[in-house]
Amino acid sequence: MVRSVQRNGGGDGPQTVRAQKALVRLVQARRLGPGAQLPNQAQLRALLGFSNDSLSAAMNRLVELGFLQRRRRVGTTVADPGATPPGLWRIGILTSSPWEEFVSPFDSQLLHYLQAHIGRRLCVPCIYFHTPGLRPAVPGDRRPDFPGLTADLESGVVDGLMSRFSVDGESATEAWDPGVPVCYAGSWEEAPCGACIDYRELVVNGVELLAARGCRRIGLVSAAPPTAEFHRFWGGFTAAMKENGLSIRPDRPVCSGQGPQGGRQVAAQLLALSPRQRPDGLMVVDDRICTGLCAGLREASDYRPVIVTHANHQAPLDFALPVTRIEVDIDALADRAVSMLLARVLDPTLADERVYLPPLAVAVARKDRRICA
Amino acid sequence: MVRSVQRNGGGDGPQTVRAQKALVRLVQARRLGPGAQLPNQAQLRALLGFSNDSLSAAMNRLVELGFLQRRRRVGTTVADPGATPPGLWRIGILTSSPWEEFVSPFDSQLLHYLQAHIGRRLCVPCIYFHTPGLRPAVPGDRRPDFPGLTADLESGVVDGLMSRFSVDGESATEAWDPGVPVCYAGSWEEAPCGACIDYRELVVNGVELLAARGCRRIGLVSAAPPTAEFHRFWGGFTAAMKENGLSIRPDRPVCSGQGPQGGRQVAAQLLALSPRQRPDGLMVVDDRICTGLCAGLREASDYRPVIVTHANHQAPLDFALPVTRIEVDIDALADRAVSMLLARVLDPTLADERVYLPPLAVAVARKDRRICA
Repeated sequence: MVRSVQRNGGGDGPQTVRAQKALVRLVQARRLGPGAQLPNQAQLRALLGFSNDSLSAAMNRLVELGFLQRRRRVGTTVADPGATPPGLWRIGILTSSPWEEFVSPFDSQLLHYLQAHIGRRLCVPCIYFHTPGLRPAVPGDRRPDFPGLTADLESGVVDGLMSRFSVDGESATEAWDPGVPVCYAGSWEEAPCGACIDYRELVVNGVELLAARGCRRIGLVSAAPPTAEFHRFWGGFTAAMKENGLSIRPDRPVCSGQGPQGGRQVAAQLLALSPRQRPDGLMVVDDRICTGLCAGLREASDYRPVIVTHANHQAPLDFALPVTRIEVDIDALADRAVSMLLARVLDPTLADERVYLPPLAVAVARKDRRICA
Repeated sequence: MVRSVQRNGGGDGPQTVRAQKALVRLVQARRLGPGAQLPNQAQLRALLGFSNDSLSAAMNRLVELGFLQRRRRVGTTVADPGATPPGLWRIGILTSSPWEEFVSPFDSQLLHYLQAHIGRRLCVPCIYFHTPGLRPAVPGDRRPDFPGLTADLESGVVDGLMSRFSVDGESATEAWDPGVPVCYAGSWEEAPCGACIDYRELVVNGVELLAARGCRRIGLVSAAPPTAEFHRFWGGFTAAMKENGLSIRPDRPVCSGQGPQGGRQVAAQLLALSPRQRPDGLMVVDDRICTGLCAGLREASDYRPVIVTHANHQAPLDFALPVTRIEVDIDALADRAVSMLLARVLDPTLADERVYLPPLAVAVARKDRRICA
């Protein structure tokens, strides 16, 4: 049953693959539907700049695949503009180096879903890890170092980039134009183009929910510092606290560590306060921190604040105390970001766009709006 | 500050890249160390079959990178056999389609760590998703369908494959020889070559730990059925139960669902038994199932069995009841599997090998051996 891949014959050469990509892009950019006529071969050669051989081979392959159709006396027309060759497009994902930086389970899952949505669209994801220090430092050269990326962009192996990478609130591509479309996915509020979880909406919902439950003193538990990268989040939190006449207790956000251990430290900090100083409501912006916080409080005392936590819909957890979850849909975030990027790969003339994805809402009436519960 | 990638000039052509790969492989397969002499250009041409131009360009690049060295009257020698060009090797990862099959957080994290360890070695990971039904069915053709893979193997874009894929206990590559080295990483006990978590060791440790705590009636909580794929695991469990004179209660493993919800169902099943029928020890083979199980038991009753759970060291969780964790090191698993694969990419003559990685052990003396606690 063992069968070797035929290395000679059957495969498309690099020029044929490029010509296929150019033809598919032409159809997409001109919004040609089924039955629409393609320019003739001489026009295509002038437009796209390939040899007759490459163009013919590419068109034959696209006819085989059902993307194009050839009819006598009519010429070549579009058959099914959705039927692009499986694996034709390769999407690079730029990401931080997990061996240098903390990678949260959210990061892992988002990366996974991004890959899955690229794969589901029959494209091949390729991962480029930021690897500082590979290239000798050159003053003024702010290009981040991703091994293999430059060569792959030069040879046309990569058709678009999904960025999970930002340093000091700057994307990988601000200092450098890769020459292919780029979209961001994650929590970075200022991405030039991409999809972003709306943590502002999430934290405002959480504060309103705590206020509706009668809480007056809110503790914010988050491992993310109030940096410029999250100014919508922090602005939203401050505004919602003010609007609901709440005070923040303790007077600065707690949590210095990640994961359950960070949560247990928060529990110890809160229990060290006198009962009157303790918050009566907690807004927790990480579900794994929340597991440790609940376990720590449950084991050590009968202090029972109202707890609302950010949770990831695709990785549900259970807690040692009653907790209201406001869920983030990582799958939907990845789907949206991949859609945006692939639309730009097929039609590079599309403009940049930034969308914020709200958390998953369950209908709980409060005042005149819906909040999550 | 915006700078476009130079598409013409500066980049290595595909033949130069192939010649670089061939030269690096030659050095590795012959185990040439620093200072060792390379065959002369005529011999290299005969050995490797490239044009003089491609060979010269490749050697120049490898000298630039510090892999080779040219010295007057000595010729070309090996400088640093570890200094291969960043991004030269591309490693494909074969994986199931997450939009068709259940993907556990373990799967996501392992995929992430595999990518990270490939990236840390300055190689580029590319993901190929199994996508059944793309190709018309041909009798006798058992090749799994991974969009883009065949073309990438034909064009030499992919140098090795890491498999996370198995169907009915058969790997993606048993029915088909991809022509490049393949290693497996995960829990599949019968992988021809690769690294596998030793779930047998884990479950035996768990049973011994429960016996040492005085448990006599053990409940096994696992969502994995006792299939041939896990015969070591099931064999180990049965043998350890027998050796310690324990009985399994209820008489078949419980848990039909995944995640915390599955755990809550197990809690309900156990609470439906009469107190005398309930197990006094639980071996749980999934930490997220364990979060729901503990929360369900804690909320509903004061039934408190001894609980041991399998946990992922890289994603610690906290539980509503005291739980002993036996941790699996996903990072070490990925590291080992990637090392095995890259050794074979550099020297394809290396033989297949299978290793089982034991769970992380904490010293707790029982009888004459160390077990996890």
